[in-house]
Amino acid sequence: MTAPDYGRAFALWRDQAPQWREYTHHAFVEAVRQGDLPRPNFLHYLQQDYVFLMHFSRAWALAAVKADSLSEMRAASATVHALVHHEMPLHVEICAREGIDAAELEATVEAPANLAYTRYVLEAGYSGDFLDLMATLAPCVLGYGEIGARLAGSGGPYSDWIETYGGAGYQQLCHDVGALIDDALVHRLGAQWHSLPRAARLSDHFAMATRLEVGFWDMGLAGV
Amino acid sequence: MTAPDYGRAFALWRDQAPQWREYTHHAFVEAVRQGDLPRPNFLHYLQQDYVFLMHFSRAWALAAVKADSLSEMRAASATVHALVHHEMPLHVEICAREGIDAAELEATVEAPANLAYTRYVLEAGYSGDFLDLMATLAPCVLGYGEIGARLAGSGGPYSDWIETYGGAGYQQLCHDVGALIDDALVHRLGAQWHSLPRAARLSDHFAMATRLEVGFWDMGLAGV
Amino acid sequence: MTAPDYGRAFALWRDQAPQWREYTHHAFVEAVRQGDLPRPNFLHYLQQDYVFLMHFSRAWALAAVKADSLSEMRAASATVHALVHHEMPLHVEICAREGIDAAELEATVEAPANLAYTRYVLEAGYSGDFLDLMATLAPCVLGYGEIGARLAGSGGPYSDWIETYGGAGYQQLCHDVGALIDDALVHRLGAQWHSLPRAARLSDHFAMATRLEVGFWDMGLAGV
Amino acid sequence: MTAPDYGRAFALWRDQAPQWREYTHHAFVEAVRQGDLPRPNFLHYLQQDYVFLMHFSRAWALAAVKADSLSEMRAASATVHALVHHEMPLHVEICAREGIDAAELEATVEAPANLAYTRYVLEAGYSGDFLDLMATLAPCVLGYGEIGARLAGSGGPYSDWIETYGGAGYQQLCHDVGALIDDALVHRLGAQWHSLPRAARLSDHFAMATRLEVGFWDMGLAGV
Repeated sequence: MTAPDYGRAFALWRDQAPQWREYTHHAFVEAVRQGDLPRPNFLHYLQQDYVFLMHFSRAWALAAVKADSLSEMRAASATVHALVHHEMPLHVEICAREGIDAAELEATVEAPANLAYTRYVLEAGYSGDFLDLMATLAPCVLGYGEIGARLAGSGGPYSDWIETYGGAGYQQLCHDVGALIDDALVHRLGAQWHSLPRAARLSDHFAMATRLEVGFWDMGLAGV
Repeated sequence: MTAPDYGRAFALWRDQAPQWREYTHHAFVEAVRQGDLPRPNFLHYLQQDYVFLMHFSRAWALAAVKADSLSEMRAASATVHALVHHEMPLHVEICAREGIDAAELEATVEAPANLAYTRYVLEAGYSGDFLDLMATLAPCVLGYGEIGARLAGSGGPYSDWIETYGGAGYQQLCHDVGALIDDALVHRLGAQWHSLPRAARLSDHFAMATRLEVGFWDMGLAGV
Repeated sequence: MTAPDYGRAFALWRDQAPQWREYTHHAFVEAVRQGDLPRPNFLHYLQQDYVFLMHFSRAWALAAVKADSLSEMRAASATVHALVHHEMPLHVEICAREGIDAAELEATVEAPANLAYTRYVLEAGYSGDFLDLMATLAPCVLGYGEIGARLAGSGGPYSDWIETYGGAGYQQLCHDVGALIDDALVHRLGAQWHSLPRAARLSDHFAMATRLEVGFWDMGLAGV
Repeated sequence: MTAPDYGRAFALWRDQAPQWREYTHHAFVEAVRQGDLPRPNFLHYLQQDYVFLMHFSRAWALAAVKADSLSEMRAASATVHALVHHEMPLHVEICAREGIDAAELEATVEAPANLAYTRYVLEAGYSGDFLDLMATLAPCVLGYGEIGARLAGSGGPYSDWIETYGGAGYQQLCHDVGALIDDALVHRLGAQWHSLPRAARLSDHFAMATRLEVGFWDMGLAGV
């Protein structure tokens, strides 16, 4: 199966990230697809993912701070809005259904494999610019899109989760984010940005963030 | 006339800012109230204010990055959303009616008296924490509220502008922001925060930001 | 054996960090003490530590940016100076002696357990203030001091490393950094800072950074 | 008289900054050259410049945080070191000779025209990357070099000040900073960096910082 078309930068960075397949075809992902991931592991993952989303939202807010134009600001702030007013409440709801109440969720102690990714993203964004932020955010946003697209229709106990990312809404978001990244690159570095030294660094950011996503799935699979 | 009640920190900081009255009763403000501010000056102010709002929105996005809880994130991100999706389009619309099109507005060269304030806020926020950001943002948000409340019903050619800030919607926002600040202070520094050394620094931030607001009105009045 | 006296904040935070003993008495540390740590593991650790020091120096530079006074700036900038002009060249030299040249050292790929700590520190510093930075930097600076003081005189193949941290120079640095932290706390939050809500957050930062140091030793012991 | 050769980026940005001549030939500068600047104005300038240097040092420390290599870190941290351990103590000494003691110097209230520049630099650096920082720092560092080179040998009551910037030590620093900037640009954006969209933004930063330097001299001349 070919990868979804989320734009030019994604296609390039994806090809250059040694662990992209390890991430998108991770045993955790396959266990979700086949429905044999133990429920406690899924819940542990969801709790960690709640904390992850908090910091991920902060990273998108930082993208709004570092935006260069009103349209970049709007794209970034709309993403923050969606995360804190829609995606995070969904996590609260799913967890509540499983007997994890809001207080327990809030009290989740962040695992090192969890914080490694979000702090890497936030630090790259603070120390670098909007592009560094995009290159480190992309593996999460677009990788989940690619996984969702591949797993769509698998059914099973985790079909809700699968359809969240495989559905039209999330796929559209991935196309929009891919376009935001491509436009931001051309706007700053010109159409030949991929031939600049800067391009290698952005690709390295994408590759490292991909590696950290693998670590996140490892944690999810181990359940601790 | 007594000041509106926007909470405890505001009451304290306002009393300690030597130029608070100079800011809120500035000749620019009085000219708006009496309707004798020359139209070109008002338009010049509006154009500068458009650029101001861009950076002010970035500062609120930084508050979302620096938030400590989901509720602080939501408050900050809702403000960014309102600024970039509502208040800034309103500026575009008013300017368009006056013959200043979007391209001209976007091309506005930021005046030093304009950038002094927003960069002061953003830098205080980057170098400090959420509270430093609140103390520097407050004179603008709450000062406009106090001015709007005082000028409400004045009528005249600038009544639209006056009612924007004097109206119930903006006044509610001021109460909410005042409460956000009070809660953030207690949450971090306890109920006796005003007796800590830190309090003097926050008050200094508020006073300096007030001084920079005076500079902004000076620029508006001079029309250059 | 009692812990070295590096000041009041350190004594408090150390007692509240559940993994402090696990960090300072880690199997990696014991293997260094007894001299039975395999050489390749030590070299792998040194290479990772070189990358670590690069980012650690950046974190101390951020402390200079976030300083509140000339004396805080001087303390922070002197540390950066020592790290980039003395400690890092020492790593280069030791590695060179072992056949790892400068180019190979520069090309070291950062392990996730390595970056987790430095990015946590840098992000805490960017998002928070000088105190957040101090609370996250302390476990490394002062923990190495405590380990060095305990291991001093052990001899063996790693005695150079041991005496670097156990020696008078580094011990003095630890006393100075401890005093810098204590002064910074009182200067901002007053003498009763430990009773403020803020104190819990600083202690949490110290505890999490300690946990990430354990992860760093784990990586060193595993040698990958 | 031709401008000193501080490298390629400087030559380009200087030509594109509309107010470069207004800055480097400002009436304040001419009054220093001819020795007819009133002493109180010079002292007022020195006091403001002391506060300026504090924030300017913080901006160079931020450059160390945002550096991409050990050599960039060393260059930036050496500059911070020189500023806080040499240049600032010199200001303290000169002011002391004139009857302004250290306590009065520390208590200087920052003028808006002063803070506008440093906060612009710091915010550009926080929101952007190392290059944004260099483009905003350059007008101060290199402009003083150009002024010093032009005024060297003028004699008069301000010859100490003139020779500080016109002397071999400061001129060398300007050559080094010019080379640091040129290398940083090529390292990130390639040899043709001037043809990228990014180049316009960097040039705009240089031009705005130049404008803010004019404002600083205006303040110095007005003496308030």
